[in-house]
Amino acid sequence: MEGEWDKIIIGIDPGTNVMGYGLLGVKGKNPSLIAMGVIRLNRMDDHYLRLRHIYERVTGLITSYLPDEMAIEAPFFGVNVQSMLKLGRAQGVAMAAALNRDIPITEYEPRKIKMAITGNGAASKEQVAAMLQRTLKIDKEQMPDFLDATDALAAALCHFYESAKPITSSTPKSWKSFIQKHPDRVK
Amino acid sequence: MEGEWDKIIIGIDPGTNVMGYGLLGVKGKNPSLIAMGVIRLNRMDDHYLRLRHIYERVTGLITSYLPDEMAIEAPFFGVNVQSMLKLGRAQGVAMAAALNRDIPITEYEPRKIKMAITGNGAASKEQVAAMLQRTLKIDKEQMPDFLDATDALAAALCHFYESAKPITSSTPKSWKSFIQKHPDRVK
Repeated sequence: MEGEWDKIIIGIDPGTNVMGYGLLGVKGKNPSLIAMGVIRLNRMDDHYLRLRHIYERVTGLITSYLPDEMAIEAPFFGVNVQSMLKLGRAQGVAMAAALNRDIPITEYEPRKIKMAITGNGAASKEQVAAMLQRTLKIDKEQMPDFLDATDALAAALCHFYESAKPITSSTPKSWKSFIQKHPDRVK
Repeated sequence: MEGEWDKIIIGIDPGTNVMGYGLLGVKGKNPSLIAMGVIRLNRMDDHYLRLRHIYERVTGLITSYLPDEMAIEAPFFGVNVQSMLKLGRAQGVAMAAALNRDIPITEYEPRKIKMAITGNGAASKEQVAAMLQRTLKIDKEQMPDFLDATDALAAALCHFYESAKPITSSTPKSWKSFIQKHPDRVK
């Protein structure tokens, strides 16, 4: 499979009970599903065991699929400080697995991801899943039981859309490139 | 230095601006300072760079000193959800460095640590530092400029006190040990 993809993006939807992941392969302008699933944590009572499990599983996914970039769904507010501390720890160990392999991380707010995938920032998880199925031409049998998996895949696809955006001509990187792009504006 | 200590405890005071660390060597019933210091993060603008730096430095300390156990100072509440998420991430990457090396982690509330070191749960950081200096017979020149370092060392010493506590005879581990301890109770 080596060399099949120009780029592989791993999407992560970190949670303290279930963590979703999705791997997206990019060839030219075409994104395709490689794999998605969930890491179930709710059967483990011990908090550190959960964190350790997240770290090991994310490390395992990185070792298996060699992603180039990581996209994380990251809410910026939560119910209470206690739940945010736990969420931060879960995010932290997942990020450490990526940082350990020099994989750059980008985070996206849930609203931003929903907007990028469905055009509606308030879309339901089911709507996001349905649009992913259509966009990436995923067989019905391949669709997961858990929407944490599609949420993670959505983060990866949102990252693909964001990184595929052309640099707009209104914000040229340098004067030289501006002149090259707009020779008519230079008299 | 190998074999000099029965056990080495690494104490961590995780923060998003400065992270303190302290290494405590235990020989028999005597704890001694091995090293302490701070990892300064406030000069780095990028959030991921800070997390990466924490992960790498904690991994470096573990590789250098080979601690057997980690003690973390962990407040269970904070100013707002945003700061708790950031703190959780900082704790998460520090914990990942330990989990990656099979080092068990124990966390202590700041109040509990202050109580264990000074006998007063509301003691100031300066009082904690002064008591550590006395207890561990630390030279004045060895005392750090940053109280994050002594806070981390305090977490390690608190952990030593906790793990050195004898199992009380009122909660025997087995019927056999109960009989051995209380032969008079068996007729």
